[in-house]
Amino acid sequence: MIFLDYASATPVSKTAKTAMEPYFSEKFFNPSAPYLAAKRAREDYEKAKANLAHTIGAKADDLIITSGATEANKLAFSAATGEVLILATEHASIIENSKKYPTKIIKVDKTGLIDLADFKQKLTKETTFVSIALANNELGTIQPLAEVAEIIRKERENRLIKGNPLPLIFHSDASQAMSLVPISVARLGVDLLTINSAKVYGPKGVGALYQGHQVKLQPITEGGGQEKGLRSGTENVPGLVGFAAAAVEAKEHQNGARKHYKQLVKILKDELEKSKIEPIFLGNKKHQLANFCPVCFPGVDAERVIYRLEEDEIYLSTGAACAASKGEKSHVLKAIGLTDEEIAGSLRISLGKDNTEEDMKFAGQKIVAAVEKELQFSK
Amino acid sequence: MIFLDYASATPVSKTAKTAMEPYFSEKFFNPSAPYLAAKRAREDYEKAKANLAHTIGAKADDLIITSGATEANKLAFSAATGEVLILATEHASIIENSKKYPTKIIKVDKTGLIDLADFKQKLTKETTFVSIALANNELGTIQPLAEVAEIIRKERENRLIKGNPLPLIFHSDASQAMSLVPISVARLGVDLLTINSAKVYGPKGVGALYQGHQVKLQPITEGGGQEKGLRSGTENVPGLVGFAAAAVEAKEHQNGARKHYKQLVKILKDELEKSKIEPIFLGNKKHQLANFCPVCFPGVDAERVIYRLEEDEIYLSTGAACAASKGEKSHVLKAIGLTDEEIAGSLRISLGKDNTEEDMKFAGQKIVAAVEKELQFSK
Repeated sequence: MIFLDYASATPVSKTAKTAMEPYFSEKFFNPSAPYLAAKRAREDYEKAKANLAHTIGAKADDLIITSGATEANKLAFSAATGEVLILATEHASIIENSKKYPTKIIKVDKTGLIDLADFKQKLTKETTFVSIALANNELGTIQPLAEVAEIIRKERENRLIKGNPLPLIFHSDASQAMSLVPISVARLGVDLLTINSAKVYGPKGVGALYQGHQVKLQPITEGGGQEKGLRSGTENVPGLVGFAAAAVEAKEHQNGARKHYKQLVKILKDELEKSKIEPIFLGNKKHQLANFCPVCFPGVDAERVIYRLEEDEIYLSTGAACAASKGEKSHVLKAIGLTDEEIAGSLRISLGKDNTEEDMKFAGQKIVAAVEKELQFSK
Repeated sequence: MIFLDYASATPVSKTAKTAMEPYFSEKFFNPSAPYLAAKRAREDYEKAKANLAHTIGAKADDLIITSGATEANKLAFSAATGEVLILATEHASIIENSKKYPTKIIKVDKTGLIDLADFKQKLTKETTFVSIALANNELGTIQPLAEVAEIIRKERENRLIKGNPLPLIFHSDASQAMSLVPISVARLGVDLLTINSAKVYGPKGVGALYQGHQVKLQPITEGGGQEKGLRSGTENVPGLVGFAAAAVEAKEHQNGARKHYKQLVKILKDELEKSKIEPIFLGNKKHQLANFCPVCFPGVDAERVIYRLEEDEIYLSTGAACAASKGEKSHVLKAIGLTDEEIAGSLRISLGKDNTEEDMKFAGQKIVAAVEKELQFSK
């Protein structure tokens, strides 16, 4: 099997799995219980939270652990009090949450990069919440969040001068970026940051929201009062322990991983380019996640390519899994100006831990063969 | 170690753990992705859902998988459209959710059993939502839900005759009951039922809400549209697979387990009763979860008893873990009419899989010794 859809899911790393194990069995205690064994589970939970927080330059107390990015994104939106700005290429969970507010959509260029002029124009004294993913989940395009934060900072200054008390909160979903981009909430300048275990070789069903000081959130679930009262429910101890272990591991190997993936992507691109199928590589060459290689073959039915490759146990996708399952056309590819034909011919290739140089050569050849066959059909 | 707080948490059973394993590693795929390997993960997810649903007499399509009971309870409350009735002994998550609606509290008797006369009186033509846990999490008292459902059915009939179009929804949180009470949603007569993996020897961080036909719910998270659009977010495949395996296992062994726990509780009670510490056993003798043995020693500081027993690695609690961690007095024990002194002297003992007859004898003796010491202190 050659798996080329790591953007949709990652296997749990051995380190993460080993870290989780004891919390399923001998250390299964409810961390809110009053006896020693449970208190130790509480300590381990808090330690894992601190380790996880450290990977994004934050403290344990800044994190609210959730059941994933979608929940963290909804919790983040509870800080919005009026007009919202989101990027055109945001994940479905951001788009859906934004619909509850008056929302403006910020444009991107054809590489998926934010149009800062458009952002500046749309950011007004009415704006209360800005949500821009650190890296896009279909193109891998990495946004210049520090520049965005600087524009937001100036708008806040303006408000202070003019006596406008409306808060302006800056949120980013860093789910897709976390495994390959060094993250520091201070350097990014965000007030809220979503992270997701399932995309960094941790277990599914766990995520977190970084909550900057003085950002007010509304509880997403009510009950026992866990997670500072913002997210009630018995703590998923093995989940968080696994997430933290995976995040720490990813952070440690980030530099090496980036170089490695760049090399692998180069091999794959070379294979595709030396053929006659004329690939158009998508996203931003300079600002792209190292493991991403989204590519377009105009005139080809990408879904049929996927089924052809399936026979060789090569697995890749046309876009975000949740959108793909509904047969929707990618709003991300639309936002970068692709035609319907181009969108229909696009593949999202995203690499991961188990891919090798040989895989890339083999997958490249098979993709070429599949696309060639499809091109023959469409003639 | 002798663990006597299984009501707060259960270890993941070997069966459940083995079932989960492959979904962390080789079957880690996102079930919404379009290729064969992912489609197989989808099939396995749906199969697990069907198995889980079957344990409560429902179908896969009736379940919305959540991150736990607290989330399922909140999702359930989205069916409320006005006045709400809840039992005085409900879990914190029910109480907190009910606060968003005009709410009446149904009384219980001194064994924790619902006061049906009080319920009948409080159920009016304005009531839209009734929430009564199948078994209480501090006393283990099992409620006569079928009788409650019958009263609700009659009120619905009345409304039909009088042309009152207001829906009346019956919800029950069966989290605590699930491992020991045979559950059939049809026989219970509920429209919505909360179940929880972490209380039936499945993994933490997974739960589900049974949604009867024609019950309208509002999405609890928005995004990719998973779980019938009611609970977006990548599916926690290993979590559900583990939950389903644990639930099926619990169901299979339910009869044997009930007999076994009754025997163990008897041994423990005998030990306590043959001493001079005069235990007052709480809850309803006839309608009580077989693994529950809540007990009160008036005049004793139960928290100090817990710390004494900790030294012998005997772990038990004063009440619900989330309430205990906040140092709150149990609203459940208050509702059954206990005085503050009695509440302060109460222990929640709840048995589980790893307890043996020897454990019960030993724990009983140690509890007697600890209580005796505390009684000497308090004199």
